[in-house]
Amino acid sequence: MKTKYTEAELREFTHNVFVAMGCSNEHANLATDVLISADLRGIDSHGVARLSGYVRLWEAGRIYTTPDLTITYETPSTAVLDGDAGLGLIVAPKAMEIAMEKARLVGSGWVSVKNSNHFGIAGYHTLMASKRDMVGVAMTNASPLVAPTFAKERMLGTNPIAVAIPAGKQPTFIADLATTTAANGKLEILQRNQEDAPAGWVQTMEGGSSGNPNELKIVGALLPLGGDRIHGSHKGYALGSVVDIFSAVFSGANYGPWAPPFVSFLPLPENPVGEGLGHFLGAMRIDAFRPADEFKSHMDNWISRFRKTEAVEGKKVLIPGDPEREMENERRAKGITLNYNVVKDLTQIKEKFSLKLRDYIPAVNPILRTKGLSYGRGN
Amino acid sequence: MKTKYTEAELREFTHNVFVAMGCSNEHANLATDVLISADLRGIDSHGVARLSGYVRLWEAGRIYTTPDLTITYETPSTAVLDGDAGLGLIVAPKAMEIAMEKARLVGSGWVSVKNSNHFGIAGYHTLMASKRDMVGVAMTNASPLVAPTFAKERMLGTNPIAVAIPAGKQPTFIADLATTTAANGKLEILQRNQEDAPAGWVQTMEGGSSGNPNELKIVGALLPLGGDRIHGSHKGYALGSVVDIFSAVFSGANYGPWAPPFVSFLPLPENPVGEGLGHFLGAMRIDAFRPADEFKSHMDNWISRFRKTEAVEGKKVLIPGDPEREMENERRAKGITLNYNVVKDLTQIKEKFSLKLRDYIPAVNPILRTKGLSYGRGN
Repeated sequence: MKTKYTEAELREFTHNVFVAMGCSNEHANLATDVLISADLRGIDSHGVARLSGYVRLWEAGRIYTTPDLTITYETPSTAVLDGDAGLGLIVAPKAMEIAMEKARLVGSGWVSVKNSNHFGIAGYHTLMASKRDMVGVAMTNASPLVAPTFAKERMLGTNPIAVAIPAGKQPTFIADLATTTAANGKLEILQRNQEDAPAGWVQTMEGGSSGNPNELKIVGALLPLGGDRIHGSHKGYALGSVVDIFSAVFSGANYGPWAPPFVSFLPLPENPVGEGLGHFLGAMRIDAFRPADEFKSHMDNWISRFRKTEAVEGKKVLIPGDPEREMENERRAKGITLNYNVVKDLTQIKEKFSLKLRDYIPAVNPILRTKGLSYGRGN
Repeated sequence: MKTKYTEAELREFTHNVFVAMGCSNEHANLATDVLISADLRGIDSHGVARLSGYVRLWEAGRIYTTPDLTITYETPSTAVLDGDAGLGLIVAPKAMEIAMEKARLVGSGWVSVKNSNHFGIAGYHTLMASKRDMVGVAMTNASPLVAPTFAKERMLGTNPIAVAIPAGKQPTFIADLATTTAANGKLEILQRNQEDAPAGWVQTMEGGSSGNPNELKIVGALLPLGGDRIHGSHKGYALGSVVDIFSAVFSGANYGPWAPPFVSFLPLPENPVGEGLGHFLGAMRIDAFRPADEFKSHMDNWISRFRKTEAVEGKKVLIPGDPEREMENERRAKGITLNYNVVKDLTQIKEKFSLKLRDYIPAVNPILRTKGLSYGRGN
């Protein structure tokens, strides 16, 4: 069963949760903005659905809410930022600020981050740059859930790459993709809805094919983009590896199988090779390559030409970022639909911190049918 | 039927072809090194198999062999290079030189290139950086052969991304991948061997599935990495788009469907939106992030840990770059196997320029059987 909240309701609640965890008002605002942005853009797996995860990591002492963010190494166009175990939701924007300042001064800026944790949707951070007429790049490593080509073992995270590119009259181009066939969040949604995973998304612990969205809980693995060798999974594996190395080997964070888990019930890996999770943020001024108006008019032309691509019957060719922007417009106006289990999580957090959040209102159609099973109120 | 040449034989012949086309000795050496590097590394589609294509483009007046390479725009960490319609094989290394010099001065350097053409294997250019303790990045756009997700029309090239990352005792990590399920060169090899393409590599002109490796000749299309929407083709499409924009919108080259074709028998697109093809080359000093020895020892650890990944029965988990390096060692020692049709092409070039090249020696087993058809000498 699903229900809707207004953006403002979720913002207020989320903000109060971060304040209750000890964040400054400014940090709570920023972390809230990152999370709600995911819900608005329809990336439900990375929005308030993650809030309980952050709370549990904080309770487990794995997140500090008053971190001291320090540049530990730098050149005019590069830096390493120590996140001091702060919320990735505030560490990554800080890293992007540093990257943008370097880009302002020397054309581009690249910041690798250590000692951080889950940073929300990668796209959020890249949009900070595109709003300032820069191309934004964001990557992060993550808990190991992905088996390289031919592997049984989980060695990499879903390691996303996001790139935002500003245009003139057209909306910003924004690619934001896990380097896997499907992101873990997509499996979580299937789990919540009790639906099967398509072939090529996950494998069993022995490396066999599987449609079980709970496969990760029984030590199966996600598959790199491409799915199998013949369809290019070695490319997804290579891209995920580059993200891991830029995020963690550049910075001194934990890489590969040493990346700390997002869930607090899993122990931290033994013999860590670095500190916390790693990110990689970049900014390039568009006018570091050609006059900004020239760049923007060609981006407008790129976008409008691609939007006119002849499509197969009944389909439309989209520009990266289109679906999320449309969803954002809709959800800003009509509210944000949350899964029933997410609402349950939020209710627990509300009680834990004695906060306020309106009880959910059952959707007009309270029965969500999936695979012949009905989910009523309270299930 | 296949045959072998020594590396030295192919180098000498290729060098002489470029000189016959009017290249300086230095440029001919460099262009030869890029091409032969592809043959050595087993990327047969991008080695001397392409030589006849470059010759035809030069004959058609689309390649100048005495280009004036000029920086037209720059900041301390970025630049645009005008390739003056020179061979991509020499334009891209020049761009990488500029990127590396900027990296030396300010930590990183990023060069977008216009007015160029096919630059060989992307990996070659990134290895220039890794040899100097820098991470190398190379991308290029290419002739439109790829249909975006849900499209019938060919809008993007195979738009590769390469990243080389130096290690200490371990060999260099090198990812070099087309942002498609399979590169066009792989189809060319299937065509030469008269073999079928696996499902998910190409589609018909109406967007239907196809196993015909000649599909591109009848206006079908290659598919973005992922293959179809459910397996993430929108991610391959997004990555290919980013490559297109960094290579051509940053620089002022032709992008998307306006990218000029590699084959000289196809006309240049009407109403070009820029000049020639575009590339994007980048270099980041590893010691722009942490001391080089620290970085290298962690890269060594990354590589050896990934190499030890538990594999599925009968398989091995590889590090990006492993297969190409092994092939290079083998071919340096034992010679380079060329397809019969490539040898025919080289023989035509030899006659055109009155050059010398040893006649091919039939392989020990002169019959190459594919799909029940026999190919004897002279077929």
